[in-house]
Amino acid sequence: MINQIYKQVFSFFLSVLLLQSSTVSYVRKSFDLNKPCRHFVLYLHNIAYDDDNAANATAATIVNPLGLGDYSFGRLIICDNPVTMDQNYLSKPVARAQGFYFYNKKTNFNTWVAWTLVFNSTKHKGTFTIMDANPYGMEPTRDLAIVGGTGDFLMTRGIATLKTKLSQGSKYFCLEMNIKLYECY
Amino acid sequence: MINQIYKQVFSFFLSVLLLQSSTVSYVRKSFDLNKPCRHFVLYLHNIAYDDDNAANATAATIVNPLGLGDYSFGRLIICDNPVTMDQNYLSKPVARAQGFYFYNKKTNFNTWVAWTLVFNSTKHKGTFTIMDANPYGMEPTRDLAIVGGTGDFLMTRGIATLKTKLSQGSKYFCLEMNIKLYECY
Amino acid sequence: MINQIYKQVFSFFLSVLLLQSSTVSYVRKSFDLNKPCRHFVLYLHNIAYDDDNAANATAATIVNPLGLGDYSFGRLIICDNPVTMDQNYLSKPVARAQGFYFYNKKTNFNTWVAWTLVFNSTKHKGTFTIMDANPYGMEPTRDLAIVGGTGDFLMTRGIATLKTKLSQGSKYFCLEMNIKLYECY
Repeated sequence: MINQIYKQVFSFFLSVLLLQSSTVSYVRKSFDLNKPCRHFVLYLHNIAYDDDNAANATAATIVNPLGLGDYSFGRLIICDNPVTMDQNYLSKPVARAQGFYFYNKKTNFNTWVAWTLVFNSTKHKGTFTIMDANPYGMEPTRDLAIVGGTGDFLMTRGIATLKTKLSQGSKYFCLEMNIKLYECY
Repeated sequence: MINQIYKQVFSFFLSVLLLQSSTVSYVRKSFDLNKPCRHFVLYLHNIAYDDDNAANATAATIVNPLGLGDYSFGRLIICDNPVTMDQNYLSKPVARAQGFYFYNKKTNFNTWVAWTLVFNSTKHKGTFTIMDANPYGMEPTRDLAIVGGTGDFLMTRGIATLKTKLSQGSKYFCLEMNIKLYECY
Repeated sequence: MINQIYKQVFSFFLSVLLLQSSTVSYVRKSFDLNKPCRHFVLYLHNIAYDDDNAANATAATIVNPLGLGDYSFGRLIICDNPVTMDQNYLSKPVARAQGFYFYNKKTNFNTWVAWTLVFNSTKHKGTFTIMDANPYGMEPTRDLAIVGGTGDFLMTRGIATLKTKLSQGSKYFCLEMNIKLYECY
């Protein structure tokens, strides 16, 4: 009788283990968007190069717009933008946002963005990359995908929610980046 | 004796739990490619800007080819292409394919592609991004990686299998995109 | 008494199973960086196009630098670089590194890189994509994120550690790429 129980429990247990180790055909999980494994807010500052501000410029147009529509379609910008903990662009940068973006809509302001946040301080070393459409002319807040990382952000994934905090024509803009990481290692 | 059994089962059980929660050095899974967690087919339409069709154009060359080989090496295109449920480019778009691609082979037609599919309807809100080489001059069907997403496609990953359905010189092409997502949240 | 034990063990077991299948709000894992599921070393060769070496060139500048700083800020390069198993650029390529990179720092040599390694042999078929900042002027070894793949590298993720092995001005460079994949399917 005792043996009986032992066997039953053991075999049930074994079958569950086997089930768990069997071929996975896909991964389906539910995420509680309010519970990232890491969460922080950063501010990105973009000072456009105008041929006259080489010392201060942090981003520069390398291909000019085509004249297709009125929303800069075709403009391609390369950047090495400072990223700070608060909205003051004179604050000490905690990271750089390296990458590019371009305008790609005829009917509104819309960019496509690939930015790598590079941390290189005693506190944080590593990178993660944001890549997605950024329809800033249509949406006050935009979710962009975070697709990978290195160092302190090894293999991370998540969402960066962007809000434009300040925009001074084509000279300067400041973005709030609400970073929510859902895969942390 | 009964205590004995209880202890044995419990300790075995505990050791398995401990094993499961111990440091993971890597993730190795087998995928059944025929069982994605989401699967759908879309059609992308690319109407090239020719200086004369601003109203209809959905893509435009922003850097012209270099003359290195006969396969447009160096041509860089930015796009905001409509994506439909069937092959008719006049059908109502269900998404836009925003991004860029460029030609990068001397010996054949080959593009490198980064396209974000942007859904913004009552039915679907969100994005996912396809990024990979697209050797369309050599392979009738090409697998491209899907590397991340937002909204309804939060954190998704998978494969987009592309087939060229129609190509009218440099003016227009239609691609079938067989989307198979293997990570869904 | 025996029933009692059975019930206890069973209910404990059930509760653990339920816990495991409940909503996951995030994924937190520890990685042993020394134990990738795949590990190999490759060498990339970049022969810059100089208008005179069309037959040999494997990469070409499509946008010239702006003159913002002394480190080629704004230079954009498209490539289809051979990848070999050893440092000899005449060795038989095992893959091509297709993609682009650009210079984006005013104060040092730094590129932002998106390269897809394309394998198309009897031994290996598939792709994976490296995308990250590459601060080669500042760091002798750089970790870059691998964000996705297809075929033999389906859905893979990991790290490529780059070292410059040889650099001949703007004509040629050879990179060692230490590929460590931590997600394999």
